[in-house]
Amino acid sequence: MKQLDGAPIVGMIGGGQLARMTAEAATALGIGFRVLAATDTDPAAQVVRDVRIGSHEDREAVLAFAQGCDVVTFDHEHVPTDILKELAALGVEVRPSASALAHAQDKLHMRQALTKMGAPSPAWAKVETSDDVAKFAAENNWPVVLKTSRGGYDGKGVWVIDDVDQARAVMATPLAKNSLWLVEQFVPFVRELSAQVARSPHGQAVAYPVVQTKQTNGICTEVIAPAPGLSDELALKAQQIALRIAQELDVVGMLAVELFDTGDAIVVNELAMRPHNSGHWSIEGAVTSQFENHLRAVLDLPLGDPSTRSAAVVMVNVLGGTVGNLYSAYRHVFARDPELKVHLYGKEVKPGRKVGHVTLLGDNADELLVRGRHAADYFSGTINE
Amino acid sequence: MKQLDGAPIVGMIGGGQLARMTAEAATALGIGFRVLAATDTDPAAQVVRDVRIGSHEDREAVLAFAQGCDVVTFDHEHVPTDILKELAALGVEVRPSASALAHAQDKLHMRQALTKMGAPSPAWAKVETSDDVAKFAAENNWPVVLKTSRGGYDGKGVWVIDDVDQARAVMATPLAKNSLWLVEQFVPFVRELSAQVARSPHGQAVAYPVVQTKQTNGICTEVIAPAPGLSDELALKAQQIALRIAQELDVVGMLAVELFDTGDAIVVNELAMRPHNSGHWSIEGAVTSQFENHLRAVLDLPLGDPSTRSAAVVMVNVLGGTVGNLYSAYRHVFARDPELKVHLYGKEVKPGRKVGHVTLLGDNADELLVRGRHAADYFSGTINE
Repeated sequence: MKQLDGAPIVGMIGGGQLARMTAEAATALGIGFRVLAATDTDPAAQVVRDVRIGSHEDREAVLAFAQGCDVVTFDHEHVPTDILKELAALGVEVRPSASALAHAQDKLHMRQALTKMGAPSPAWAKVETSDDVAKFAAENNWPVVLKTSRGGYDGKGVWVIDDVDQARAVMATPLAKNSLWLVEQFVPFVRELSAQVARSPHGQAVAYPVVQTKQTNGICTEVIAPAPGLSDELALKAQQIALRIAQELDVVGMLAVELFDTGDAIVVNELAMRPHNSGHWSIEGAVTSQFENHLRAVLDLPLGDPSTRSAAVVMVNVLGGTVGNLYSAYRHVFARDPELKVHLYGKEVKPGRKVGHVTLLGDNADELLVRGRHAADYFSGTINE
Repeated sequence: MKQLDGAPIVGMIGGGQLARMTAEAATALGIGFRVLAATDTDPAAQVVRDVRIGSHEDREAVLAFAQGCDVVTFDHEHVPTDILKELAALGVEVRPSASALAHAQDKLHMRQALTKMGAPSPAWAKVETSDDVAKFAAENNWPVVLKTSRGGYDGKGVWVIDDVDQARAVMATPLAKNSLWLVEQFVPFVRELSAQVARSPHGQAVAYPVVQTKQTNGICTEVIAPAPGLSDELALKAQQIALRIAQELDVVGMLAVELFDTGDAIVVNELAMRPHNSGHWSIEGAVTSQFENHLRAVLDLPLGDPSTRSAAVVMVNVLGGTVGNLYSAYRHVFARDPELKVHLYGKEVKPGRKVGHVTLLGDNADELLVRGRHAADYFSGTINE
């Protein structure tokens, strides 16, 4: 649909909750928003007017989708590089570009680039056999972390390996197309952090406060903004690393740099070039949310203020549990906590699946965390009062 | 579309900016949201997936729209009462009900009810001729305020009348169907206020901070929350009046009570039973926005906290000016003020038309107002730097 007041159309490939929440920001800004969703019931497909149904791996579908979009961006990193390059060759603005996105799609590519720029990284190596893993472990100690270079997310494609037999067992499973094995030194971290930045094509960048994240079975379940007790020195260092990665890799849009905090140092774990679970707190908790700043960045508009709106912000993910009807929890959680902000993604409930999140703003992160966990557990059905 | 996680579907009749902003709240809460819009390019029709095109005066269209909705509510007050009564008779939950909504649809009906409950009101009378107006003025002094009982909004259907000749001239225009004339005492106010409350079917109600509003040519253009310098006593009185009106008229959803502040007293001017321009500040400025609380109220869910997120919140409406392309202002206004929150409604620009609003949070309302006005004026094209 042509925008009546001259606004551009942003096309987002992927119809998950990130696209759904970006749609809210686009609606507020009056920016045209189109989504390519795999199915009619994807979280974003349920709410966005200009939705197209098709696979992100289907060249024809992606090319048809992009027609009429002023810029194309992503809800996930899984669009094949050759399709992205073809879009760019046709004159479509693809942000982030295929060459930037490659670093979020391929962990070997990412490690090579980060090592080259001197970003703090664990020791790592490309491996092909369990013997290669054993050789790496001989130099860096067991356990090691074995990863597939492509296709991993939410803890998939990542194994902590204690010995060569475990490596052999994991590597017996054939790799997906274009994917390779890499092994990394196990980093004995005290906690995980995330540093998010937004960057625009003309090079403006803003850094969000560094947050503390908690992963449960590889899935981000809790975020505290800003990270409690993080020294100004380490916080600044994390922001500088994220800003430098964004610049050196020519990232456009949101970049999340997931970090290990070892107590006295930080080490880069993963990159994501899109809005990220570690930034959901920013919808209410920051002056400008990650979703709005992603849109502003890919449109090359001046970026918004990433500051927090309160001393502490806590986000807790709602995971699917035994109760299929999430809505049935509203009466209880809303009555119990009138300050609670709830986001449900419209997904069918499956055990362990991310189906929503809750956010709380206040002065005391510990107290907010208790309240947020209670609500999330009530949605999941693990508590009933 | 059936909601996968058990959520209900709220149907909103009317596809304007209120429906558009309610859609954002529904998306966050994971609540199904359907809109009946007059045209495909209405503000809400541009962004809502489940949009139906039809007139709110078309019985067939409204009945078809309501099928499958768990509750039906409104973006405006213009749905004919007989259609609403038929919906209710068919078992559709209509919130607010036809009998409550009648007080927002018909100013004579409203004045009768407010007088009966003893709410502070100007003197008023039903009139049929200019001689009736003159007789009323003989008792209450010129000028008087002449109104049509139905169909007025944004200053339409309201005239300040200085003498009998003016009354005769205005009343020469035939009234719309079902509309009557009423006359009210002119209230010498020092400023206008708005008191908003949300109320649910089971009777829970919450009161938003009383705000100061500024009307320009009958259109709300500026809102300051909370109203600067309002005594606790008058603020409490205004909230109590709004809560009492909501209860006595059995309002469900948001109620806005527009008030005149005479310096030492408050007088009820108008009622609106829906989200209202005087509450747009609450999207970022309150813990729970008027749009979210409207949804929670019509679904009979516990209501959210209406408290402000900062000491002062300012909203300035963007009116259409000479520049058709609103988006072209983004580069300037965003660069100038990274804290600015902008909402554009997707409307074609026409001079004087409400096409968006901006919101700012902070400590000093005067300073926020300067910044908000600058941005709104830049969008309108009345300033260019």
